[in-house]
Amino acid sequence: MIIETLSVFPGVFSPYLDASIMGRAQAKGIFSFSAYDLRDWTHDRHRTVDDAPFGGGQGMLMKPAPIFEAVRDISSRAECAPHVVFFSPCGRRFDEGVAERLSHEERLLFVCGRYEGMDERAYSLADDVLSLGDYVLTGGELPALVVIDAVVRLLPGALGDEMSARDESFSDGLLEYAQYTRPADYDGQRVPDVLLSGDHGKVNAWRRMSAIERTARWRPDLLDGAGLSEEEWELARQAMCEGNDQQGPDNEGPAAEGE
Amino acid sequence: MIIETLSVFPGVFSPYLDASIMGRAQAKGIFSFSAYDLRDWTHDRHRTVDDAPFGGGQGMLMKPAPIFEAVRDISSRAECAPHVVFFSPCGRRFDEGVAERLSHEERLLFVCGRYEGMDERAYSLADDVLSLGDYVLTGGELPALVVIDAVVRLLPGALGDEMSARDESFSDGLLEYAQYTRPADYDGQRVPDVLLSGDHGKVNAWRRMSAIERTARWRPDLLDGAGLSEEEWELARQAMCEGNDQQGPDNEGPAAEGE
Repeated sequence: MIIETLSVFPGVFSPYLDASIMGRAQAKGIFSFSAYDLRDWTHDRHRTVDDAPFGGGQGMLMKPAPIFEAVRDISSRAECAPHVVFFSPCGRRFDEGVAERLSHEERLLFVCGRYEGMDERAYSLADDVLSLGDYVLTGGELPALVVIDAVVRLLPGALGDEMSARDESFSDGLLEYAQYTRPADYDGQRVPDVLLSGDHGKVNAWRRMSAIERTARWRPDLLDGAGLSEEEWELARQAMCEGNDQQGPDNEGPAAEGE
Repeated sequence: MIIETLSVFPGVFSPYLDASIMGRAQAKGIFSFSAYDLRDWTHDRHRTVDDAPFGGGQGMLMKPAPIFEAVRDISSRAECAPHVVFFSPCGRRFDEGVAERLSHEERLLFVCGRYEGMDERAYSLADDVLSLGDYVLTGGELPALVVIDAVVRLLPGALGDEMSARDESFSDGLLEYAQYTRPADYDGQRVPDVLLSGDHGKVNAWRRMSAIERTARWRPDLLDGAGLSEEEWELARQAMCEGNDQQGPDNEGPAAEGE
């Protein structure tokens, strides 16, 4: 996969994408990365990419011309036209389904805004407009890195054998069950006995129960799509009634500590 | 504000936090940043931070001991105990309200997981467990950077005079109106005439209408909390009926291009 970014801060991507799993995936040829500097498509001495908004108001907007010129120019540099991704609070909420869809593209170009926003006309270049969530960031660079990370880890071979790309969370419609490693007793906090039993049937049953209880407690909105049995719904209803005050099988659940 | 991270990849934060708005905010003393290496709290030659899960299964989990020791040790290094943030799909969804709340803390410590997950007991150290969204990343480093960026931009003085911290999106409960800068005609795409009129009353009315229409079309879930008048609701209902096929006042809306 070819991954490219267009931004006024082209230097912020590689330190992340050259490290760890992303760096190994690049070294293995699973994706190639180029960061373009939007200012290379300006024509004035100050390499201006922003201007004041029509109609007045605080802040500067990114001008349409450099973005149009850059996207067209970059697109023509390889045979396969890129799938162009912009970010905006008006965009479609990014989730694992979108990551899965993007992982089948041959070439992705992320256009990262800065300042107060972007001239509305630039969005006509987008194949996808994505939103990471209901919060405001100083630019589109971090959203691009988040999407790149989520997409690359789904590419065949990107994760080593020691890891599975299909994380339990979301892949079966439930949050992941509570997980434990050694020691069995840490500072008085014990791992549930069933996990030490070596009985795979019981372990699997406990994990399914843990996943249902955690989902019921913290993300009940996911339950409808999770294909629960009659009996599992009963368990989910109990967990919802108990709420965050009670401790589940996972004894120290994150959200119980989270507020 | 003191901002700290605990991670097995301490090098990935500074390239972003030393650049641009974040870099200037650090230089102005608005926040200080330290990245700690979790391996500094291991005691074996290989500096092991992960181990196999109890009960079997693929993947490695982060061991509880280094995390407990590190968080306790780091916490004791300043007078003010840090507000400790973990990330998990089970966590509370991060949004602008959470960013606002965190911006009042004196000291934030972000604990970033890697591998398949973290021993459940480690979450008992958390003051907040956050989730960025329903997608899977290779680690907690990018979520930490996202939260840091969203929080720092809210700190007094972090954004220069040329920018306003209170972005229109979400702050009045609506998505931001469409924005335009010069030229008035780019490649046949014209800026709405009203924005060129110089009539501030009309400009403001158009912007409110644009914000309502965009929200109705792409984020109708936000409308209930936005305090619309009777007349504005009528406008919103019309925009919802028109859906994504029609073009609004903003003529080239992002989501119309987004799918």
